[in-house]
Amino acid sequence: MQLNCDLGESYGSWHMGHDAAVMPYIDQASIACGFHAGDPVTMRNTLTMAAKHNVAIGAHPAYPDITGFGRRSMTLSRDEIIACLHYQVSALEGMAQSQGLALAYVKPHGALYHDMMAQEDVRAAIFDAMASYYRPLTLMLQSTQRADKHREEGKLAGVKLLFEAFADRCYADDGSLVPRSQPGAIHSRDHMLAQVQQLRCDSSVTSLSGDRIGLQVDTVCVHGDNPEGIHSIAAIRALLDGD
Amino acid sequence: MQLNCDLGESYGSWHMGHDAAVMPYIDQASIACGFHAGDPVTMRNTLTMAAKHNVAIGAHPAYPDITGFGRRSMTLSRDEIIACLHYQVSALEGMAQSQGLALAYVKPHGALYHDMMAQEDVRAAIFDAMASYYRPLTLMLQSTQRADKHREEGKLAGVKLLFEAFADRCYADDGSLVPRSQPGAIHSRDHMLAQVQQLRCDSSVTSLSGDRIGLQVDTVCVHGDNPEGIHSIAAIRALLDGD
Amino acid sequence: MQLNCDLGESYGSWHMGHDAAVMPYIDQASIACGFHAGDPVTMRNTLTMAAKHNVAIGAHPAYPDITGFGRRSMTLSRDEIIACLHYQVSALEGMAQSQGLALAYVKPHGALYHDMMAQEDVRAAIFDAMASYYRPLTLMLQSTQRADKHREEGKLAGVKLLFEAFADRCYADDGSLVPRSQPGAIHSRDHMLAQVQQLRCDSSVTSLSGDRIGLQVDTVCVHGDNPEGIHSIAAIRALLDGD
Amino acid sequence: MQLNCDLGESYGSWHMGHDAAVMPYIDQASIACGFHAGDPVTMRNTLTMAAKHNVAIGAHPAYPDITGFGRRSMTLSRDEIIACLHYQVSALEGMAQSQGLALAYVKPHGALYHDMMAQEDVRAAIFDAMASYYRPLTLMLQSTQRADKHREEGKLAGVKLLFEAFADRCYADDGSLVPRSQPGAIHSRDHMLAQVQQLRCDSSVTSLSGDRIGLQVDTVCVHGDNPEGIHSIAAIRALLDGD
Repeated sequence: MQLNCDLGESYGSWHMGHDAAVMPYIDQASIACGFHAGDPVTMRNTLTMAAKHNVAIGAHPAYPDITGFGRRSMTLSRDEIIACLHYQVSALEGMAQSQGLALAYVKPHGALYHDMMAQEDVRAAIFDAMASYYRPLTLMLQSTQRADKHREEGKLAGVKLLFEAFADRCYADDGSLVPRSQPGAIHSRDHMLAQVQQLRCDSSVTSLSGDRIGLQVDTVCVHGDNPEGIHSIAAIRALLDGD
Repeated sequence: MQLNCDLGESYGSWHMGHDAAVMPYIDQASIACGFHAGDPVTMRNTLTMAAKHNVAIGAHPAYPDITGFGRRSMTLSRDEIIACLHYQVSALEGMAQSQGLALAYVKPHGALYHDMMAQEDVRAAIFDAMASYYRPLTLMLQSTQRADKHREEGKLAGVKLLFEAFADRCYADDGSLVPRSQPGAIHSRDHMLAQVQQLRCDSSVTSLSGDRIGLQVDTVCVHGDNPEGIHSIAAIRALLDGD
Repeated sequence: MQLNCDLGESYGSWHMGHDAAVMPYIDQASIACGFHAGDPVTMRNTLTMAAKHNVAIGAHPAYPDITGFGRRSMTLSRDEIIACLHYQVSALEGMAQSQGLALAYVKPHGALYHDMMAQEDVRAAIFDAMASYYRPLTLMLQSTQRADKHREEGKLAGVKLLFEAFADRCYADDGSLVPRSQPGAIHSRDHMLAQVQQLRCDSSVTSLSGDRIGLQVDTVCVHGDNPEGIHSIAAIRALLDGD
Repeated sequence: MQLNCDLGESYGSWHMGHDAAVMPYIDQASIACGFHAGDPVTMRNTLTMAAKHNVAIGAHPAYPDITGFGRRSMTLSRDEIIACLHYQVSALEGMAQSQGLALAYVKPHGALYHDMMAQEDVRAAIFDAMASYYRPLTLMLQSTQRADKHREEGKLAGVKLLFEAFADRCYADDGSLVPRSQPGAIHSRDHMLAQVQQLRCDSSVTSLSGDRIGLQVDTVCVHGDNPEGIHSIAAIRALLDGD
């Protein structure tokens, strides 16, 4: 099981995240591509840091919405989704190659990620974008109870998938995340470590109400905007490396 | 001698240029990359058109200035210029490859082009960007009396150059373009054809005051925003093909 | 019954619409405020033209989406809607006052307009924005079968309303507009004039299937992006002035 | 002598500055207007905070350059400068009035401020913008050895001026600021307090080389991005209130 984090989310003069603190501990960095965060200089610096720490890099494309940090859903057409993804993925890939790095995967950001999980037409457009890129792209998406369905869709589209779970978020009984606004949504350090351990040993999480939810997981995500998560990252790394 | 034109300069719902009319006649299309014009869908459509007509494609990167159409000079740092160029060139290249096209060259747009010709530090940053891309990039710039100097700079930086002249613009005695605001700056159809013929047969242009100015020229540009130029494009094509 | 048109929708170097042709014939110009179209210079020029023709001006605010021309729905929070409206309305009002013009009303644009008509929470946020501005603002919205409900909502919020109908669009039996993609959605010149005449004399339109739909209408809109509408504007003006 | 600070420079999800810490101590808040920082929600929140602390508010307009934080010079035309200023000032003013606040002055930001001080045509365009607004606007600019010349220009244009000095920056012998990149450019707390005291009692500063430079100063600025300045703000306040 890999450890991934969303990075490179500063913008121009504005700083966000704890990239330097996190980078030494993770396997995969999902890097903002300029549409919700990550101006070209920030992208360049983030790639340099990833190269230094031998971290695999993914593109973290978003709806075109700097002011809303890509967290507001937008009704893009299928063509707009495909073109926006190709644009952002290409931009990061060329910059990565210029630092001797290969792009390993694509993980949509924010509202685009949520819409991908919730809306079949958005997901189909994203699969199309992965499949019509000049070389096969691997898509990272959330592991849910519908993972088999998504795997089937990916097979049909010819797109390889990576399933992720969240270390720092509590799950509802239906396998969705408890909304951030609800009590118990964000895990404490102890809960986080316990959840990662359970994902690793039992491919499951325990829901807010105590149910066991089985999840196929390739990689676990710690949110860069969760201070508790960032502070626990070394412990999570040790846990994943442990045997 | 090749024939090039700046294309793909529509943006979202706004239309600009005569891409469909011009594409059948040109050898090289310099395509906007989203910073002064050319949203992702427009880029995709422009590339499709270039593929259909077997036109070589170039990236046409600019200062980040949609409102100003990249025509306003901006004091970017060396790092900002390099990162902005890598971002835009990469974005176009990945999208081009996804349509089976290879990127042939880079031609800076508008104020960035002018600053490249006028300011040594801007030009050096652009050379650096070309040289530090993951594969060698060819830079298109204006042929002037200083072409030998620029060729030398390119050699030192390890950057291959393409020199262009303008079909539709009148030259001053010093080899610079007569400013658009001045009378005689924009050529009529007859002047345009005569200038292309002279470039082709004598590697020179005749200045506003009648002087002969020798110019090393690999490619001649017709501006897409010059209606006279657009209407004469078939005639210029015939002239270049003629023998 | 007044005649209104959406204007000032050029942006930087991109031209859109037929403002100069339309302005002499209309009573009310809804002017883009920079979030979907209308850079500051365009706003200034549009206001100058409105002043010359004694046209009442309205703010035409939108979701922040230049690339999508404000036609893509975005999930803004209530606070974001209010702040975005105050920002855009204020920007236009100060510029209008600087040309001796008073702002007469506010008409949301594109997806914001559609969401206002379709979603109660968006409409409530817009009413709040109108009511919490430093002086009372009049809101223009679509006249539908639910006009009485909207009038009631407006009364509660303390917001004066203007109801508009569309000259160039065909209505469905439920009083909504037939989607542009469907046959018969856009009226020919004759249909347009007949619809305006019926609105004027009978406060009603005839639906696609032939039903009579009663509509309370203060103002009739001709879309600036409908060439047929633009060409018929003088005839509509004559019809409205007729007696 | 008043105390001013540049505030409201967060943007969307990105936080910048120490507005809440600074606001209780200052007389004048120069608030970003959306072109270099300050989205509409941020502007609203900043105005609320200013209202709470009875701080006079100024508009802090900039070149349109979010990515560059308005710190990159741009060659805007006279018309573009005027329209951009009217747009930003109007946007802030309407939002301020909606919170019961009146706009007290305008202070250009970053590169626009520097260009105003260095380039006569930029300064003339800014004076024009102040004079052609619907009501007289007061302009804040840097107090230099040329203050009398600027006062004369202001009188001719019909624009009232406020001159400011910087608490946290060291002056060169010619009355300009020592560039940030040079040693000694940024004052320590002690130097800062001494400089404010000297400005207050002697209308002068001591240059890097020890010269006395007389300065007419209406207001002293502490930069919000200077942590030392922010930490000293209570002491500066006490000093200005001195007893």
